[in-house]
Amino acid sequence: MTHITVLSGGVGGARFLRGVRAWARQTHPDGAGGSTAHITAIVNTGDDMWLTGLRITPDLDSIMYTLAGANDEERGWGRVGETERVSGELKAYGVGWPWFTLGDLDIGTHLARTHFLRSGMSLSAATERILQRWDIGVRLLPMTDDEVETHVVSDIDGTEMHFQEWWTRHRASIPAREFRQLDVERSTPAPGVLDAIAAADVVLVAPSNPVVSIGTILGIPGIRAALAATSAPVVGVSPIINGSVVRGMADACLQTIGVATAADSVAVHYGSRAAGGLLDAWLIDEADAAVASHVEAAGIATTVVPLWMRDVPTAKQLAADAMDAATRVRSL
Amino acid sequence: MTHITVLSGGVGGARFLRGVRAWARQTHPDGAGGSTAHITAIVNTGDDMWLTGLRITPDLDSIMYTLAGANDEERGWGRVGETERVSGELKAYGVGWPWFTLGDLDIGTHLARTHFLRSGMSLSAATERILQRWDIGVRLLPMTDDEVETHVVSDIDGTEMHFQEWWTRHRASIPAREFRQLDVERSTPAPGVLDAIAAADVVLVAPSNPVVSIGTILGIPGIRAALAATSAPVVGVSPIINGSVVRGMADACLQTIGVATAADSVAVHYGSRAAGGLLDAWLIDEADAAVASHVEAAGIATTVVPLWMRDVPTAKQLAADAMDAATRVRSL
Repeated sequence: MTHITVLSGGVGGARFLRGVRAWARQTHPDGAGGSTAHITAIVNTGDDMWLTGLRITPDLDSIMYTLAGANDEERGWGRVGETERVSGELKAYGVGWPWFTLGDLDIGTHLARTHFLRSGMSLSAATERILQRWDIGVRLLPMTDDEVETHVVSDIDGTEMHFQEWWTRHRASIPAREFRQLDVERSTPAPGVLDAIAAADVVLVAPSNPVVSIGTILGIPGIRAALAATSAPVVGVSPIINGSVVRGMADACLQTIGVATAADSVAVHYGSRAAGGLLDAWLIDEADAAVASHVEAAGIATTVVPLWMRDVPTAKQLAADAMDAATRVRSL
Repeated sequence: MTHITVLSGGVGGARFLRGVRAWARQTHPDGAGGSTAHITAIVNTGDDMWLTGLRITPDLDSIMYTLAGANDEERGWGRVGETERVSGELKAYGVGWPWFTLGDLDIGTHLARTHFLRSGMSLSAATERILQRWDIGVRLLPMTDDEVETHVVSDIDGTEMHFQEWWTRHRASIPAREFRQLDVERSTPAPGVLDAIAAADVVLVAPSNPVVSIGTILGIPGIRAALAATSAPVVGVSPIINGSVVRGMADACLQTIGVATAADSVAVHYGSRAAGGLLDAWLIDEADAAVASHVEAAGIATTVVPLWMRDVPTAKQLAADAMDAATRVRSL
């Protein structure tokens, strides 16, 4: 298990990746505090947007800040020790979205990224360049270098808005009729994405939003086929514990696509790889042990373990459990 | 004197404009703390540049901040109460110019401006939009909406650099062979500039850098002709007091174009309007009274008054003296 590829959204994915990294450093130590294992995260960029001339990539940044130890653990997002002086000015000038506040340190990242993009770099090249500052021990790949933004169609009036407007401004309170990935049909996976899936020893699906994070990654042409073709087992972690989403408002997203907010329903939605779906194995929480048989019945090997990532040790244990599940799949 | 047009650079021009505004409010009060007089500043944009994807307009901002009372009086430039958190991040990412620090509040202005420009607004429209936030009582017009950046040709090796690099990074220490206004021949005055000159009751030339501020404005095709044609008297204030520049390193600029750093030499360089030059009248400091006759001999009416703008009252008195000089020209 020296080549580990993780499909990931933002905050939940970041915590899971921190566990995977801790697991890799312990089981495959390089003698210098790092690991000889290669961890690659394929990251959702559907939440990305242009805001006041800046290119914002929330999930990439959440992962980067968390793995760099520069995240605000208490607030759950953004940089620790953040201030909002620039945002105050933008509000005074009446630009931007007043409900989407950018921290000053965060704006530094956005300015650097935007500068690289405008200089002609792709998002993956800009991300690599940005990461030169932080020694995170994980390779971050945007799912695509193309701008494939997720839009939400309101079920009230049929109008469309950027996912961030629906999620952050309206707190997912507006019933959504549909999620749309703009221009997805013309997009291609970012360089390295298909290789990272094909060459993986294990593919992990982080406990991220199944619709607008993982679902969005799966929407990029070519990624589903690569996941179907890889020799690596694909092991997912349920983002639902005891019938509730761990964080965020994923239940509103699941409702929109007609999937119940339940550990088994999400697995069945992803589907068994043997039957053309995504998963070889699925980790559910002890609180959901009763539905394990439903997942097994769908052809997905199921493991019941504690899923709650309270801290790095519990996240590391979750990663270890996922690796064990992968090993069991390989030995079948 | 209800239509006052001022040619201006940054900090020195800003202080002079504050005096002109105070004079107007006193002599033409509108009963609400403002003035019925119309003050228009035509502002040098040769120092403007793109930096880390932001459009920076130093002179427009110096004037705006100063007239809004938001400037850092002690430091002499930028916003009061400024911080540099974003710049710290940019340095950590290795972007931008490490010798050109942008304050956080200032970056708010640059982000808003850049956003407007990228949305398709001209610089003059963006400036007007930015000014909606500040009630400064002076109309600010960039000299042109085109990007006409001043470059400096090194006399050491003939290479070229942006004026800001020469001025801020190298503190004007590299001998300059020449100043170049990139693409100036294709530029036109911004909307309102020629009208503000034609319809003025008086045109004032602020005590700004005669080469890279005022000289740059005069380089825009059409502006010299408008100044020659206006029925308004053109009155200048010497930026040289007692053979020294009041601030900045204008002496290095004057040396490059072969003009001595002296109150009379600058006037002679500008030239008498009657002889195809710029000036009808010129204000010099009491310390330079001895050279008044040289200016008079060049056909420029000369007034000897205190030029040092210690505070708003002294700047207001200087404005009053300039208005008196204009009145004398008109009565000739």
